[in-house]
Amino acid sequence: MLPTIAWQGDSVLMIDQRKLPSVEVYVTCKTAAHVAKAIRAMVIRGAPAIGVAAAMGIALGMRRSRATGTKQFAAEFQKTCDLMAGTRPTAVNLFWAIDRMKRAFADAAQSGGSVGDIAARLDAEARRIHDEDVAGCRSMGAHGATLVPETANILTHCNAGALATAGYGTALGVIRAAVEQGKKIAVLADETRPFLQGARLTAWELVKDGIDTTVITDSMAGAMMRQGRVDLVVVGADRIAAKGDVDNKVGTYSVAVRAREHDIPFYVAAPMSTIDFNTPDGSRIPIEERHEREVTHMGGVRLTPGGARVRNPAFDVTPAKYVTAIITERGIARPPYEVSLSAHARDTGPA
Amino acid sequence: MLPTIAWQGDSVLMIDQRKLPSVEVYVTCKTAAHVAKAIRAMVIRGAPAIGVAAAMGIALGMRRSRATGTKQFAAEFQKTCDLMAGTRPTAVNLFWAIDRMKRAFADAAQSGGSVGDIAARLDAEARRIHDEDVAGCRSMGAHGATLVPETANILTHCNAGALATAGYGTALGVIRAAVEQGKKIAVLADETRPFLQGARLTAWELVKDGIDTTVITDSMAGAMMRQGRVDLVVVGADRIAAKGDVDNKVGTYSVAVRAREHDIPFYVAAPMSTIDFNTPDGSRIPIEERHEREVTHMGGVRLTPGGARVRNPAFDVTPAKYVTAIITERGIARPPYEVSLSAHARDTGPA
Repeated sequence: MLPTIAWQGDSVLMIDQRKLPSVEVYVTCKTAAHVAKAIRAMVIRGAPAIGVAAAMGIALGMRRSRATGTKQFAAEFQKTCDLMAGTRPTAVNLFWAIDRMKRAFADAAQSGGSVGDIAARLDAEARRIHDEDVAGCRSMGAHGATLVPETANILTHCNAGALATAGYGTALGVIRAAVEQGKKIAVLADETRPFLQGARLTAWELVKDGIDTTVITDSMAGAMMRQGRVDLVVVGADRIAAKGDVDNKVGTYSVAVRAREHDIPFYVAAPMSTIDFNTPDGSRIPIEERHEREVTHMGGVRLTPGGARVRNPAFDVTPAKYVTAIITERGIARPPYEVSLSAHARDTGPA
Repeated sequence: MLPTIAWQGDSVLMIDQRKLPSVEVYVTCKTAAHVAKAIRAMVIRGAPAIGVAAAMGIALGMRRSRATGTKQFAAEFQKTCDLMAGTRPTAVNLFWAIDRMKRAFADAAQSGGSVGDIAARLDAEARRIHDEDVAGCRSMGAHGATLVPETANILTHCNAGALATAGYGTALGVIRAAVEQGKKIAVLADETRPFLQGARLTAWELVKDGIDTTVITDSMAGAMMRQGRVDLVVVGADRIAAKGDVDNKVGTYSVAVRAREHDIPFYVAAPMSTIDFNTPDGSRIPIEERHEREVTHMGGVRLTPGGARVRNPAFDVTPAKYVTAIITERGIARPPYEVSLSAHARDTGPA
């Protein structure tokens, strides 16, 4: 598997997810601004991957700083953090990663470190965030695979895979772990309009791993469920409110409603960093509205007539009542999530 | 409004629905085989329009026949009917229209008509089917509009408009009639992957009529409903079983499940010719699986990776329990549909 994001000397490389699956090309980011631009343009996407990218972008920016004194360095750091925070509003992992970098900065500064010392500490923290993300996905996979029968047709929406994380994936990590355990898995991937993360990214990475994958248009999922072709659903998340409401790629709510109608388990796999204990419920989560061109055009071809309006909310909220369980790196949380998610958080201290 | 299908001398013209909205161009069919090919390739689509096109194609073929005796003419007629019947399996209007043409043929032959007389009778029957379709849509519109509040946000899926009929539309006929009555209507059009009938066709014809139209991707409809942005749903149908199960464009079932979850009325508008009293329930309706390229490619660009499988069922079945009412040219049928639809059929004899 090609890495989603990696250091190469003094640069951050990202596989360009806008161009997959037809072209496998890396974008080289030499500045923090370039990383921020790549996040905004969805060169890299997926809540955990956005967090990792932001941390690496901050580390990159501070490593390349020409500040001589810690005061100037601190000002630059704050500006770089603000730049990252302004890229995308919904995935809470972004703000979580920035907070981790801020704490690392404060620790290093407090212990009287030089500009070089602080930069090194930020660098180490970004690497830690990256490595923890991969380990967390492996752990989620192990926990989640216990929910998967020996033979299962699994529906997923969007891409919550290696490409949405530092590696292995959240929802697709669960699928990978089940496959590694020898379970007989077939995946139905919603194509996930408008950005087609399912058709382009999920199918690409699962086919590379030799996992049986069938792409359907988003609206076919209901018929597939009614025909008994879906045993369980597993998706990722961009933000989970304290009571368990799940904000994820637009269409996730539609999948959840149909899953419940057919008594199909609906699982969400996400790291603890996706759980926002400061947001009590889904109604408080900001939903990014992206450019209408993602809906109106494809491959340079205009799909809709001039004069028709377009909506393009990138996410929607699935209320907790539709969610059978939430899989984190610390185990499987069941309703009521106010209780179970808090218990996960206390388990080994705040994530 | 440009006509969907029309005679031009000895040819049948159809607006090429594969190329809308960017290009408004007509295909000229000079033979029955050409009409059949156009139906198969979805130059023209929509259950009522397919029926009208098949009738016109048969009339065209027989008008151009060089048969000198009625026996040879009858053999050619049978072959032409078979050709039309083989184009698409799901829309029952196709078979209904062919049956009407067969009855017209039999009537004319029985009264001792010449080849020329029978051809003229077939021509007249095709024109009658065309005209009745437009009148039926107007009638459906008048009945359906009584179900529409003074101010309403209406969601529709696929295209059940002028382009899916000989004119005015079934579901969009209801919307047009409500607008003509001065009601304040805003339409949400599901883009309707994979063929994008909503984004391309519904938006095109509604915008031409000055009706407020917003295109969304299919999976956004759930979030829109949850936010209270949908007051009612109205869709067309390709075949309705005797007990009221509705076969329509794939994704219709998904819309119906979400509408019920939100207590939003779900209406189906279709002419009596769409009701198949010989098919007791939805499980007996043949579902066409179309070429995977409709899903894997767009505008020549490949979306999915090689190695990923694809499903492309063109239709799905919405069980009667999700359908609030069925609007026909004879009025509004309510559950139980076994009773109400049969009553409509008896009203003025079989449609």
